[in-house]
Amino acid sequence: MSETIKEIKSIGVHDFDNWLEPKNFVYTPNPLRPFDIDIKIIACGICGSDTHCAKGDWGRPYTPIAVGHEIIGHIINMGNEVDKTKYHLGDRVGVGAQCDSCGKCWRCDHDVENSCKTQVGTYGTVRPDGSHSQGGYSNYVRVNKRFVFKIPDAIETIHAAPLLCGGMTGLRPLMTAGVTKGTKVGVSGIGGIGHMTILFAKALGAEVTAISRTESKKETALKLGADHFIATSDPKFPEEYLDSFDLIVTTAFSLNDDYVEKAMRMLRPHCKLHFISAPPTGEKLELDPNFLLSNSLSIGSSAAGSQRDVEYMLQFAADKGIKPWVETIDISEENIAKAWKRMKKGDVHFRFVLTGYDKYFSQH
Amino acid sequence: MSETIKEIKSIGVHDFDNWLEPKNFVYTPNPLRPFDIDIKIIACGICGSDTHCAKGDWGRPYTPIAVGHEIIGHIINMGNEVDKTKYHLGDRVGVGAQCDSCGKCWRCDHDVENSCKTQVGTYGTVRPDGSHSQGGYSNYVRVNKRFVFKIPDAIETIHAAPLLCGGMTGLRPLMTAGVTKGTKVGVSGIGGIGHMTILFAKALGAEVTAISRTESKKETALKLGADHFIATSDPKFPEEYLDSFDLIVTTAFSLNDDYVEKAMRMLRPHCKLHFISAPPTGEKLELDPNFLLSNSLSIGSSAAGSQRDVEYMLQFAADKGIKPWVETIDISEENIAKAWKRMKKGDVHFRFVLTGYDKYFSQH
Repeated sequence: MSETIKEIKSIGVHDFDNWLEPKNFVYTPNPLRPFDIDIKIIACGICGSDTHCAKGDWGRPYTPIAVGHEIIGHIINMGNEVDKTKYHLGDRVGVGAQCDSCGKCWRCDHDVENSCKTQVGTYGTVRPDGSHSQGGYSNYVRVNKRFVFKIPDAIETIHAAPLLCGGMTGLRPLMTAGVTKGTKVGVSGIGGIGHMTILFAKALGAEVTAISRTESKKETALKLGADHFIATSDPKFPEEYLDSFDLIVTTAFSLNDDYVEKAMRMLRPHCKLHFISAPPTGEKLELDPNFLLSNSLSIGSSAAGSQRDVEYMLQFAADKGIKPWVETIDISEENIAKAWKRMKKGDVHFRFVLTGYDKYFSQH
Repeated sequence: MSETIKEIKSIGVHDFDNWLEPKNFVYTPNPLRPFDIDIKIIACGICGSDTHCAKGDWGRPYTPIAVGHEIIGHIINMGNEVDKTKYHLGDRVGVGAQCDSCGKCWRCDHDVENSCKTQVGTYGTVRPDGSHSQGGYSNYVRVNKRFVFKIPDAIETIHAAPLLCGGMTGLRPLMTAGVTKGTKVGVSGIGGIGHMTILFAKALGAEVTAISRTESKKETALKLGADHFIATSDPKFPEEYLDSFDLIVTTAFSLNDDYVEKAMRMLRPHCKLHFISAPPTGEKLELDPNFLLSNSLSIGSSAAGSQRDVEYMLQFAADKGIKPWVETIDISEENIAKAWKRMKKGDVHFRFVLTGYDKYFSQH
């Protein structure tokens, strides 16, 4: 029998200036629409985006704000129009970075609804009706069915969570570039998304080079499966590595230093640098067009993936046994603060996943 | 029997401040290397690059400088190492924007020698030995065989000339993007390169939209074969055309206005804007990275094409009967100045081709 959600308990930022002190709050979800699904959350990855949003790197949309967009849970209620042959009460499902889109535009109609111009982020978006989207540091979430993904049985919950945003975001550039056996892929930035990009690139058969500032992550990168390692602090970078890559995926947050051009010098002609982190609001990307022209290069980006992409990604991860490296931590105000502080120091290999939802929210 | 070239007669710029007054000069070519081919020129297209170079948009490398890199002529002499089963005295051949490369680097070894970092442009390059490359407004040219292309019999000389730089430059983005039947291609800038891009895109089966500032070129663009036309001065641009294109090729010389982002708004997610004109030296390309990310877009460029590309392009043009729209003009100081002045005003549909070489150089 389905439950009805009247209110949702969350932990979130109440003051962007004190973002490292998240606190409990309660919000009333919008009424259930015929195509909505209610999910009781059991786990949520802590994406780098969560801290960027929490500290206001992308603006200060509203408070309180609960972040979290790598959500795993069970279906507890569905609107009348949800296909009951596809979704069932109790199904283990996931939600990524997006919880809604207009459903009417060209992009929604052509499997690129992740670029819908009026999309709703799982958190951080003020909807047209003025309501706020709230993320997965919460006991429940109510989501348009289009953005609810069934998790293959072969994937454990704690591994499935980070795949929904970080994994998808890392895989999409490999799909766009047609990465296959032998493709030479550089992955720059060995953190949450970067480590999953390495896992996916290896699973696709690519020859993968991990690129990081110093040698400190070399051993770990090789353990992840990277075939080679480049430290950008090495005086030989990038001269030693010209014409080495068919694709470089960079997770660098800021793009306004000379790293972009240096990295692109390692690309072969007709190849691309693909960035997948949203830089701080207002930052510009400045390039020498003659550099792109004379070397026949491109630069581009993408935003996570579409429904079709995510479904493909999850099945591919299940088939290939892809397991993000995670550290679980029970959800609570204190533990979220602790995890965020450790992420600030880069002290996580490579993804925190919040668990213990039932216990916490039954007591708070 | 082969002729030996001792000196080469040219017409070129002697003073960048008076670039519209080209004058005769004579230069001594570098000694014939075993892999060089000497060509007696019979025609040369006047590429937009010629005027950019002549007026110093890309710096002031040296004077006198003879431009012209859409050269057609006949082989009159060959070094010992040239494959005599492939090239024969009297063969009608062409030379594009490049006349030499190092022959040793990764790029030269992998069919992307057009991006060799020590390449020699057909004009405008100071070679490592200090000598100057001089282009095709000359009676002869001496070129590394790698950059000498046999012209298929099916292509007339005056049509072959513009294909060698402009045609190749316009086709390469279509190759990179894998344009095929039904691909929605926008071609922005309906001039020398742009009109050839339309011809090639149509020959590949694409649905082609010509994009120009005003309606003035609409009729011509449709005659060229474009299926649709967009004037960027139309208040409906670009809003009316969002998500319309799989690829936009722009020939715009300058990229530092808001046109680039406006044009990119017409692209579908995972698609690219490809620019093929080298902007003025020092100009930067400035983009909002979050615009690229949220719309999953790329921007890139390419420099003409490789030997393999040019050979493919010529055969494709022969097979498809591609004929650039040309206006012939006999070579002379006066006529070059006249052609350049008309190009300044956009008064050419769409390519001047210099002819009458034999007559002129036998008298000057």
